[in-house]
Parts: sequence; structure tokens; C-alpha cells
Amino acid sequence: MATLVESATAGTVTPQMKAVADGEGIDPALLCRRIADGSVVIMQRGDRSVGIGSGLRTKVNVNLGTSNLSISPGEEVKKALIAEKFGADTLSDLSMGGDIPAIRRAIMQHTTLPITTVPIYQTAAEIGLGTISVEEIIATIRRQAAEGVSSMVLHCVTAGVLDLLKKRRRIMGVVSKGGSITSVFMHRNRCENPFIDHIDEIIEIFAKHDIVLSVGNTARSGCIHDGWDRAHREEIRQNVEIARYAHQHGVQVIIEGAGGHIRFDRIAEQVRYYKEQSAFPLFVAGPLPTDIALGYDHSAACAGASAASAAGADYLCSITPAEHLGLPSPEHVKEGLIACKIAAHIGDTVKYGMDGQDRTMALRRAKFDKAGQIDGSFDSERARRLAAEDDRCTMCGDFCAMKLMKHLLEPEQ
Amino acid sequence: MATLVESATAGTVTPQMKAVADGEGIDPALLCRRIADGSVVIMQRGDRSVGIGSGLRTKVNVNLGTSNLSISPGEEVKKALIAEKFGADTLSDLSMGGDIPAIRRAIMQHTTLPITTVPIYQTAAEIGLGTISVEEIIATIRRQAAEGVSSMVLHCVTAGVLDLLKKRRRIMGVVSKGGSITSVFMHRNRCENPFIDHIDEIIEIFAKHDIVLSVGNTARSGCIHDGWDRAHREEIRQNVEIARYAHQHGVQVIIEGAGGHIRFDRIAEQVRYYKEQSAFPLFVAGPLPTDIALGYDHSAACAGASAASAAGADYLCSITPAEHLGLPSPEHVKEGLIACKIAAHIGDTVKYGMDGQDRTMALRRAKFDKAGQIDGSFDSERARRLAAEDDRCTMCGDFCAMKLMKHLLEPEQ
Repeated sequence: MATLVESATAGTVTPQMKAVADGEGIDPALLCRRIADGSVVIMQRGDRSVGIGSGLRTKVNVNLGTSNLSISPGEEVKKALIAEKFGADTLSDLSMGGDIPAIRRAIMQHTTLPITTVPIYQTAAEIGLGTISVEEIIATIRRQAAEGVSSMVLHCVTAGVLDLLKKRRRIMGVVSKGGSITSVFMHRNRCENPFIDHIDEIIEIFAKHDIVLSVGNTARSGCIHDGWDRAHREEIRQNVEIARYAHQHGVQVIIEGAGGHIRFDRIAEQVRYYKEQSAFPLFVAGPLPTDIALGYDHSAACAGASAASAAGADYLCSITPAEHLGLPSPEHVKEGLIACKIAAHIGDTVKYGMDGQDRTMALRRAKFDKAGQIDGSFDSERARRLAAEDDRCTMCGDFCAMKLMKHLLEPEQ
Repeated sequence: MATLVESATAGTVTPQMKAVADGEGIDPALLCRRIADGSVVIMQRGDRSVGIGSGLRTKVNVNLGTSNLSISPGEEVKKALIAEKFGADTLSDLSMGGDIPAIRRAIMQHTTLPITTVPIYQTAAEIGLGTISVEEIIATIRRQAAEGVSSMVLHCVTAGVLDLLKKRRRIMGVVSKGGSITSVFMHRNRCENPFIDHIDEIIEIFAKHDIVLSVGNTARSGCIHDGWDRAHREEIRQNVEIARYAHQHGVQVIIEGAGGHIRFDRIAEQVRYYKEQSAFPLFVAGPLPTDIALGYDHSAACAGASAASAAGADYLCSITPAEHLGLPSPEHVKEGLIACKIAAHIGDTVKYGMDGQDRTMALRRAKFDKAGQIDGSFDSERARRLAAEDDRCTMCGDFCAMKLMKHLLEPEQ
């Protein structure tokens, strides 16, 4: 069967393309051309198709998953349910502890959103870091593909990028878990990157299941001091080459080409650097424009992700208040998701002038339609709790600027 | 006695200037020149001097105060204590309900931060909107000055700006409470702006007590649709003229020249527009780059205020999660303040490359010094609660990227 890229290249608008185009309010033929040129991907799971990329609403991913120190499958399902309820577009299951296939099965049973995995996580967790073989990595990819995941992250870091990382003394080195596991594998086996070395075999699996290849980033920075150095830029350049190769062979690709901790004014610069050399959708984790927001990293990420999406990032990964502290609770997942959805929307107001929801809220405010405002909010229960109990607004009481000014601003007849 | 502006113009470095310069790590003579040229102000209260403006750390204000529908003096004191504890630089008492002087006295007894008021609020609350006279407005200014407030906001909106507001159909009209009360006064009395009409008398009071004049903004927008229109730009232009006049007469001035609801990419544009015509410190409420973040406006404001301070705003007003819903609780004040402090710091990393705190946090992270990270955070109690109970990090468990990569990244000898 043809992949979406193959169909699009042949000019065939598939039902998935039609569904995404209708949902986004764009021309299906245009969407089809964008899948053909790589600037849009569709993540699929069952009947659900989520489009990511050029001209589409900025999407938000939520990370889930156990670690070997914190294994509560029930909590992960709760997080998945909360993420879907509060408007996540996709989920990533990053589990590394417990019965990983069973945990993912439970998440998939309870939700309908596309699921991304990082196959080397499961391989390392199941086999042990010291004894992984390439065959086992590829076997995990095959198994996860058969389970029906929508997208997989492969860290295509090269020895060349690792050399660049060695040359500059970073404070925090590498903070990408998948990148570091891959690097350890390369070091122990004295080999080049296993995903690049076996790219054709991997592409075949991805094409067969029409899975989106997400090229992971190893050199993204863990503190603003380390941000946006030569290693990171070189990795992006290399990842774009790998993405082109996969796309030419019929596989949809996104690239984690920006993000990490990076000074606020460099975020747009980084996004533009990426966009100048690549049309593939840009996935961004964070970015965090400061290192000091411990306990409040969701707010710092709201600032960073707003700047990133306004500059052109297509797909954001939410950051919870528990970032840097531990695995998040379901409540943390919700807080992080809503902050990220705010950032995605801020990006859309800039990228597309997409201010329809803002207009609706403004019109409700102008009419003092409190119930309407609350209904239209991200979390109506919370808004209702924060609002005064009766119809009055306790903020200004009788001295409401809008009421006072109403007659004064009527245009003269 | 000479005002700070008069001393600075004469080249005299006062103890207040010395204290601020030492605290900010800049040359006292330079600070003195900046007070002389208007680009820095010092808000004073008792022994405390807080500098705001060019070359100084971005400052954060917290709004307090009752409305006629919500009068809990004890709550306001609690908010003031929380604001001081979590690092607010200044407070604004915006009370319009209850025994206003008593509430302010209580706030001032419990805190040491400079206090800003909006005299027309108290006048309207005490006299009633329909019967205010200019004499009563000026009497309130005198009384508040005698109480020892550090700064007062006067809305110097003109009939010309109101005409411009009439000409464009905004969705939300005017959302400035002080601006609307002032406009109603002008309309009822068929007069021009009372603060401009009596500017010399007012300047005399401000100079006598060395109070900072904060020129309030009436045309700031209540939704992004209304943002950054001709009325707003014209008001800023006029306010800069008034500020120059006051400064020439020995009074320190700041201008609320940007803010409100405004599309994200226009925030920097707005700040630059202001800075091109004025050296006076720029105070910003919000800005909110979207209207839809009801219940989470502190996160949206973190994005907006980061962009504003990075572009040059000097002084930010924090926005709480209860914005648009009602008067905030002490917990909301804390949430809003911390989000705003994050934004101020993000601005400082861009404006000044001020990344010392980030470096400290990064070094602690690199050393896995969890206690140090928590101690250095905005709210250690919260961070401790969010962190795993033991020394392990539940996020990545045994698969910690930094640990895995440590040896791999050692430079070869």
C-alpha cells in the first residue's frame, strides 16, 4: 500500500488528507502538495488523523511514561486521559519502567490520540544499557510498529557531533536521554549511529506502517549558557539530510530541530535557522528561556514556546511544573498542557492571524457574558472556581471601566 | 529640600542614589546622570529605595486593594506580605472599598516596599463618581502624599484621545478604570483633563514629597483586536510631553506606555515605539498576547511580559490567574508574581546578558545538587513538595543523560 507521502507525490488526496484539511479549513489539494514536499505530516491512529506543519494550527504533545524509579501504570493512564480531555493533540509514551508494552496498551485503550515512542528507551530498559545490539533495537522498532504507534523518535547523532560537543566545555553536557543512550551504544560498540547505519531497513518498517519518523535531537542545551552552539547547529544540518533521505523513500518526517534551554532572543533566530534549510515540520521541546524557573517551568516554557511558535515552530512539547524535579502528576500534566496550548495559540495569532477564539472571548467580555467566558476557557471548572459566586465582578465592583465608558464612546449620530 | 531630579541635575549623588547603584552594581555617578536625564527613577519609602529604569534590573509591581464588592483588609495585608516574601519590588494599593486610608495604613505597617496609589480611585470611592470636584481630587493627592506613598498614577487622557477612541469601533472600548473615571469626570464637567489643567499645583505636591509621577494609560486595549491603535499611540505621544514637563520641574516620572492585550509580535514593536520617543522608564501592565487564557492569564502574561522586558520595558505589573474573574486571593497573587518575576528575569538575560542566577542553577544541576537547586528557586517549599522524596530523580531514573554522557564528553588529554 502506498504511504501518505507516496500518495501525495502521485497527487492522490487520501481520506486522511481530506479529514485533516477539512478540520483545519484548508484546501485538500494544497495539503496534499505539502505532504508531497514534506512540509506537512499526518500522524494517524485508528480513525484519527492529526496534521502537523505548514499552514496548520500549532500542535501540542504531552509526554507520559514511567521511569524505573516510578512505576504507576494507573497514573500514566490518568495523565493520558487528562491530556486528551484538555486538548493535547498527541501523546508520547516514554516509559522505561515496569511492563512497558502493557503500560502502552493501557494508554492506547483509554485514549484515541496518536502515540509517539522512543524505541531505544524500551530497548535499554528491557535489555540493559550495556548489552543492547542493533538487532534488538530494530526488533523493538518492529514490535512498536506492529502495536500501532503513530510516530517514533530516533536520535541520529553522529560521531562528528559528539566530537563538537567534546570540544566546547558545556556546563551540562548532553541532556537528551535518547541521545545519550544512543551515544553510549555508539561508544561501547565503536560504531557510527545505528539508525543511520540501518536507515534503509528502518525506512522499510516505517513505510510499511506509515509511521512518522521524528528525528530526535541530542545536542539541545540543558542550560542557557550551553544554548545554540556549533554542535547543535551541525546536528540540525545533519538531521535535515537524514530527513530528506527518509522522505524521498516515502516516509513522513518531523525534526526536533530547536528547543532546550536557550536565551529568549535566540529562540526566533534558532527557528529561522532551521526553517531556512528545511521545510519539514519543526518540533520543539520547551524552549526554556531561563534556567531558574524551578517549580514554574511551565510558565517559563509558555514564554519560550510562544516565541518559538510565533517564529514558525509547528509542534510543541509541553513542559510541566515538575520539570527538573521528578515525574509529573496528572495535575502537573494538565498545568503544563494548558500553558503550552496558550503558547501554541499565541503562535497561531502571529503566524496566521488566527484570532477567532480571542474575538469570541472579547465579545463575551464586552457583553458581560460571564458564563460564556467560562464555557470558552481551557478549564471551565477552574475558571468557575476562581470567579465570584454571583454575577457581579469583584475586581472593579461598581467602577467597571467598560460600563463607565460605554455611553461616552458611542459615536455621535 | 531638593528633589532627586534636582540633586541629580546639580550632579549631587544622594544616599538613595548610592544605595540603588550599589544594589544594582553600577556606578553611582552614572545612576545620577540617568536620574537627571529621566531614564531612571527611585521610588522611596522610609529607608528603602527602589531604582527603576535604564541599566537596572527589571522591576515587578504587585497590585493589591479592595473593591466595593470585596472588602477584606486582612486579606489585603496577607497579599502584601506574600508579595514582599516572594520578591515583589513595589506594591500598588488600588483599594476602592471600605476604610481606604485604614487599609493602606495596615498594608504600610506590615511591609517595607514602596507603595503606589491612584488618587482618583479613592476620590471616586469616597465622594461618589457623580460629584467629584477638582478640589477633592487634589485634596486626595495631598492626603496620600502626606501618608508617605512613593508614587501616584494620574491618567492624563485628553479629549483628543477620547475622540480618537470614539472614531474606531473597538470591541471592548476602554478597560482602564482610572482612565474611565477621569473620562467620566471630564464629560460631566465639560472640561479638559483635570491633572493636565492643574499640573503645576500637582507638580508642587509631588516635588515637595519627592513622589514619582506615574502617567497612567487610558487607551490600552482590553482585547487583541483593539490592540495598538491610533488612540493608544497618540496617548503615549501626549503622555511623553506631560512627563517631560513634570521632569523639567523636578519630578521623577514613569509612563505606562505599553501593555494591555496585544498580539505577541506587536509587543516589541510597541516597546520600541515608546523608547524611540522617550527615555522615561516604561511601565507595562501585562501585556497579554491572547484573550483566551482565562484562569491562566499569569502564564499568558509571562509570555507577554518576557517579550516586553526583553524589548526594553523597565517595570512590569504582575497579572494573577484570577484576572478577568475577580479579586485575587493571596495564593493567586503569589502565582502571578512568580510568573512575572520569571518574565522580568528573562528580560534581563536579553537586555543585560544577566545570566548569573541561570549559571548558578546550571552548575547545581550539573553537580546533581538538588538541595541547592531547591534553595535557589522562587518558592523552595513548592519545589521541595514537587521533588521526589529521596535523592534520586524519578524523571529519568537510572537513565540520566548527564550521568551517561559524563565520561563520553571528557576532552581527550
